[in-house]
Amino acid sequence: MKKLNVGMIGAGFMGKAHSLAYAGMPMFFWPAPAIPHRKMIADVTEEAARDAAARFGYDGYTSDWRKVVENPEIDIIDIATPNDSHAEIAIAAAKAGKHVISEKPLARNAAEAKAMLDAVKEAGVKHMVAFNYRRTPAVALAKKYIEEGAVGKILNFRGTYLQDWSADPNSPLSWRFQKSIAGSGALGDIGTHVIDFARYLVGEITDVMATTQTWIPERPVQSDGVDKLGTVKASQDVPKKPVDVDDEFTTLVKFENGAVGSIEATRNAWGRNNFLTFEIHGEKGSLYFNYERRDELQVCFADDPVDRRGFRTVYTGPAHPYGEGLWPIPALGIGYGETKIIEVYDFFKAIVNDTDVSPNFYDGYQIAVITDAILESAGKNAWVKIEK
Amino acid sequence: MKKLNVGMIGAGFMGKAHSLAYAGMPMFFWPAPAIPHRKMIADVTEEAARDAAARFGYDGYTSDWRKVVENPEIDIIDIATPNDSHAEIAIAAAKAGKHVISEKPLARNAAEAKAMLDAVKEAGVKHMVAFNYRRTPAVALAKKYIEEGAVGKILNFRGTYLQDWSADPNSPLSWRFQKSIAGSGALGDIGTHVIDFARYLVGEITDVMATTQTWIPERPVQSDGVDKLGTVKASQDVPKKPVDVDDEFTTLVKFENGAVGSIEATRNAWGRNNFLTFEIHGEKGSLYFNYERRDELQVCFADDPVDRRGFRTVYTGPAHPYGEGLWPIPALGIGYGETKIIEVYDFFKAIVNDTDVSPNFYDGYQIAVITDAILESAGKNAWVKIEK
Amino acid sequence: MKKLNVGMIGAGFMGKAHSLAYAGMPMFFWPAPAIPHRKMIADVTEEAARDAAARFGYDGYTSDWRKVVENPEIDIIDIATPNDSHAEIAIAAAKAGKHVISEKPLARNAAEAKAMLDAVKEAGVKHMVAFNYRRTPAVALAKKYIEEGAVGKILNFRGTYLQDWSADPNSPLSWRFQKSIAGSGALGDIGTHVIDFARYLVGEITDVMATTQTWIPERPVQSDGVDKLGTVKASQDVPKKPVDVDDEFTTLVKFENGAVGSIEATRNAWGRNNFLTFEIHGEKGSLYFNYERRDELQVCFADDPVDRRGFRTVYTGPAHPYGEGLWPIPALGIGYGETKIIEVYDFFKAIVNDTDVSPNFYDGYQIAVITDAILESAGKNAWVKIEK
Amino acid sequence: MKKLNVGMIGAGFMGKAHSLAYAGMPMFFWPAPAIPHRKMIADVTEEAARDAAARFGYDGYTSDWRKVVENPEIDIIDIATPNDSHAEIAIAAAKAGKHVISEKPLARNAAEAKAMLDAVKEAGVKHMVAFNYRRTPAVALAKKYIEEGAVGKILNFRGTYLQDWSADPNSPLSWRFQKSIAGSGALGDIGTHVIDFARYLVGEITDVMATTQTWIPERPVQSDGVDKLGTVKASQDVPKKPVDVDDEFTTLVKFENGAVGSIEATRNAWGRNNFLTFEIHGEKGSLYFNYERRDELQVCFADDPVDRRGFRTVYTGPAHPYGEGLWPIPALGIGYGETKIIEVYDFFKAIVNDTDVSPNFYDGYQIAVITDAILESAGKNAWVKIEK
Repeated sequence: MKKLNVGMIGAGFMGKAHSLAYAGMPMFFWPAPAIPHRKMIADVTEEAARDAAARFGYDGYTSDWRKVVENPEIDIIDIATPNDSHAEIAIAAAKAGKHVISEKPLARNAAEAKAMLDAVKEAGVKHMVAFNYRRTPAVALAKKYIEEGAVGKILNFRGTYLQDWSADPNSPLSWRFQKSIAGSGALGDIGTHVIDFARYLVGEITDVMATTQTWIPERPVQSDGVDKLGTVKASQDVPKKPVDVDDEFTTLVKFENGAVGSIEATRNAWGRNNFLTFEIHGEKGSLYFNYERRDELQVCFADDPVDRRGFRTVYTGPAHPYGEGLWPIPALGIGYGETKIIEVYDFFKAIVNDTDVSPNFYDGYQIAVITDAILESAGKNAWVKIEK
Repeated sequence: MKKLNVGMIGAGFMGKAHSLAYAGMPMFFWPAPAIPHRKMIADVTEEAARDAAARFGYDGYTSDWRKVVENPEIDIIDIATPNDSHAEIAIAAAKAGKHVISEKPLARNAAEAKAMLDAVKEAGVKHMVAFNYRRTPAVALAKKYIEEGAVGKILNFRGTYLQDWSADPNSPLSWRFQKSIAGSGALGDIGTHVIDFARYLVGEITDVMATTQTWIPERPVQSDGVDKLGTVKASQDVPKKPVDVDDEFTTLVKFENGAVGSIEATRNAWGRNNFLTFEIHGEKGSLYFNYERRDELQVCFADDPVDRRGFRTVYTGPAHPYGEGLWPIPALGIGYGETKIIEVYDFFKAIVNDTDVSPNFYDGYQIAVITDAILESAGKNAWVKIEK
Repeated sequence: MKKLNVGMIGAGFMGKAHSLAYAGMPMFFWPAPAIPHRKMIADVTEEAARDAAARFGYDGYTSDWRKVVENPEIDIIDIATPNDSHAEIAIAAAKAGKHVISEKPLARNAAEAKAMLDAVKEAGVKHMVAFNYRRTPAVALAKKYIEEGAVGKILNFRGTYLQDWSADPNSPLSWRFQKSIAGSGALGDIGTHVIDFARYLVGEITDVMATTQTWIPERPVQSDGVDKLGTVKASQDVPKKPVDVDDEFTTLVKFENGAVGSIEATRNAWGRNNFLTFEIHGEKGSLYFNYERRDELQVCFADDPVDRRGFRTVYTGPAHPYGEGLWPIPALGIGYGETKIIEVYDFFKAIVNDTDVSPNFYDGYQIAVITDAILESAGKNAWVKIEK
Repeated sequence: MKKLNVGMIGAGFMGKAHSLAYAGMPMFFWPAPAIPHRKMIADVTEEAARDAAARFGYDGYTSDWRKVVENPEIDIIDIATPNDSHAEIAIAAAKAGKHVISEKPLARNAAEAKAMLDAVKEAGVKHMVAFNYRRTPAVALAKKYIEEGAVGKILNFRGTYLQDWSADPNSPLSWRFQKSIAGSGALGDIGTHVIDFARYLVGEITDVMATTQTWIPERPVQSDGVDKLGTVKASQDVPKKPVDVDDEFTTLVKFENGAVGSIEATRNAWGRNNFLTFEIHGEKGSLYFNYERRDELQVCFADDPVDRRGFRTVYTGPAHPYGEGLWPIPALGIGYGETKIIEVYDFFKAIVNDTDVSPNFYDGYQIAVITDAILESAGKNAWVKIEK
């Protein structure tokens, strides 16, 4: 069986998630398109990288990501670093002829994303951007229902991503709160997942009209580079510096196909943890999904007899998308890991079968265009058209 | 014990709800501020009015609403007619020195509402507009938490009112789909309840930026005047006429106190019945309410220990607002009737104690101003400031 | 239109609920079978009775219930007193030729209930026992599905009634904790509602195997007779006396038709308020109901395509049982009042049409037989057969 | 870092889950107690075993499980075979001085389980039985609350495990429906997980009083040995053979510490997938858990102010048990995999630190004693005492 060597750049939360996915993919989807082999991992210091190799099961390690990109044995570069390095690494990897999967958002802005897209197209390599949540089986099931026409023409899409991990003003000023590194705030970090849902499930967005807020204008300076995602609070005497990205945004949206809707994200919603939801109203039915209860999709069919009509709570399992590889009974439990395992599975299929995979760098670029437009709209208080 | 005589105009769904409230109020809240006496009811024909008097327990009846307004024994005029007659009746009632309670929306537009407000102020009578949902004990509990500072400064308000009773294109063109009678569509009919929540719980709205949609552009003509709320479908051969109001709207909102948010309403959301919700994020906590599960308020307190923090589902009962008069155990069951019983209770207290009650005609007028602004914003695709 | 005069015995929580029902029934169900007229009410003192007449809208009042029973103008005696007086009043009422509706449980034990049943049969009057929860439209919808065969042969019934209003040991020793008045504890007070569900939805129970617990063996003595249902706590220095009824029971059950299951009730379940639920598994589907969310019935049909199968959440409205009289949109809100309004409606239909109504005194008696058997089973730790 | 070599027996659903756990454990919990090395896997044929080694990442493979047990390089034997081979393998492994982890139920009956327990005690090896669900962080959080006294003395435990994968009579007669292989039906397969919860959270069970049912008395014969868990239906012409185990059981239980309760499991509950729940009522609070929504624990504290009391929905994350190793934000998603990863983590800690781990073979044996008692009780319709 074919083997593909993976070079991982970054050993944080996402390095962990992707490494688990490489280990687990063939266990779930068998025969696998190819066996992922964890070849080399890069992290910021030699020591951290050595530690990461042992922990995540890589043959080799380095503190210089270029060594990974240049390694001729490596087939795939996996970018799991903060946003400001995505472009440089991806472009280098493409030039080196590697297939590239990058964490989201693809880049800090559309211009950077465009350069990345150009590079992978030029190189003819496979490319993917890791909007993993659309691979939740329940989300893929929503897509299937829509494609089957089960809910009819879509009229309205409402998407939210609500969190609270940075709602405390003493949560430190990690890279996620710095425009120079992150590009934007809740918008790029979590809002882009909702934009990905919207494009995946409904279609292309043509217009946005947004507001953004920075509820916590300054935060305690953080000494190291890793984002602790709210698990560590700074003490009172740590000096504070300004936050220059959004904590929250809401946008009205119009779609090419006539649907309308709204998208919002915030990291200031106490009690919401990973509240990534959508509600879709179509002419023949409705859909509702909440990632916090991700084994479930709710669907209402207008054609049901009126005395038996109501939202059905469908637990995904063997009869639903990706069910051939996942757990044998619904509700045994889809976790974050499974979304990444499916992501790797689809990426590997694309590589082995020489097909496209979605979301790819084009999708990542288009989402960056929408992201930029949302910021522009909020800045000038007016509708902004999305270029295609 | 003092008795107040009620003259009811209109004997449809709302005539029923209000009549039940007059009968039930003293049973719940005792000693009652005064005993409501159902004196006279008006409906469109003599026969319908006679029937209504027997059914709803009124001493007398008439097919001419002016007879009710002119009856010197009557203390209170209750307006439960379609929107286009609210102004005429209310102004006549005020001139006749009657206290007035009107169904919502107060009028078809701000100009009409202003005339009504002027009339009741001029007459010095008590006035109320029947946004009953804010009297759901769980909503009143949210207000109490907010006033106690339990969720801190409010950052964001999201309100929705989703229904599906007219999602079928064969649902007939009742008065609710005609601008000349209704003023607007989902916006005035149900959206105004959400606007009332927003003003009640957060504060004055200063800016709106909206879209509106009419998903079903024409509907079968209806032979009689009563709205059947989707329970009757027209046959295929009934001719259709255009709908000239909105089926749906979404608006971004800004509040005077710096909070932001969104409000939306639709009658095209299959599977949603009376899905009137709000979610409020404050600096110290969050609130969530869904009228479909109206015995419950969800609240999250940021100050809870992190390992015990989460939304609490509080079932309202004796320990919560209006609990002194309602059922003795939480979840025995608040129904639509109870919201109207509480409404009558508060209105009677205002009359007997000569105090103001909220929402009154000023609130109804301000909501009409906001409603007009939403339509204006959707028409010109731009933010509109709300005059005060 | 025919009028039926009601004599109400008892002016507490149940007096209120029933009085509201008499006032509201024709407002909801029109034309009504007959118009209920609130003729006379009895309470323990002259003053309390006068007050109750004003509050609940009765023409006359008395402190001597026998005056009500003997009043020749009265057609219906409504018994809303503690359990120990049901038999005496009902038997007197039957002898006086009145139709009788009694609060539940019908009596303190099967022997008393049998005497009541004999009396009404002897007198040829209509009789009903007020297990109102089965009149929740969602419960009646479950019955309809079962009768239509939509869930197939029933295999298993699980019913619970969990409350917490007396979970605090300082909640006083009201009559509900005294065997001489109440007959039994949670079993008779709330467990009988679940037994009523079981018989209504599944069929006759043939065998029980139970345990009972009295978690709080003594409680503070209460000075007056009214049960405050946990809203008042005794101070520390109030003397305590023993509780001689159950706080909780669980029983295994076997049904005549081969189904099995369990029934339990407790008043010591912190956080459960009026958690009256059932889950039914049939060969072709399942049903779930929770009164705390009483507008909803959950149903799963085995015949649904496997990729679209799941519990449907059906909100009851015009298309469901009693929908012709209730609110015009699902989820407008069924409260406790509506269950009692429907109860009166069905009782009045039975009287006017000279038909039987269920649950009647036979049902009340049979439930008392089962209740006695549960206590017997718990006492001897063995299965007990139910006599029919 | 220390490495421990694992020998896996069985390559089905459980082989997959355990293999993922060995790969993932150090990725989550770092530094790991030791690094699991997947050394050798056994399956029924040489070809299947070779395939499994490639898929699950083992160095070697065999069709003879004894080769694994005898391999001197192997430290741990992991038993993921049908129930009838657990004893033989575990005893051989213990004799060979290997640490042993076995899938549940530990054995077909208490006698077998006793022999296994004796063997591991004799050998002085570490032993664990894979009741993984108690390692769901939300379940471990319930345990933590109980140990902290947050819900007070426990009064009542209700546990259920409801599934529907074999509710269809055409679901084949796999080994799970054959007493000679499985020992019992729903009882051993899923009910034992609930018994494990009960013992873990409440304490030792002293008495049971049960019923069992076999709703589908015969099923189509299956040609191969693997259980497809309902995903494959037999065609009509496949001959049927009798089922000699239970499809469902319910038992009343009494605990050593005075608590009471009930436990039930079924595979005939349409619409329930992996509905493994418990509800616990204590003197100071309540707990509710449903594995289908496994990121959440619901807890109600009696001490909360009455106007703010209600079940809290706590999403587990970094602040909760095992949070140091799992995903960095609550509701990112605990799946089945994570429960097995935690299981391996705790087993490895026990091995490396030479401590006991729970549930071990003693727990597995005690659960088998209870299982046998449940069958005995159902057989003779009487309470059965549990020997210790």
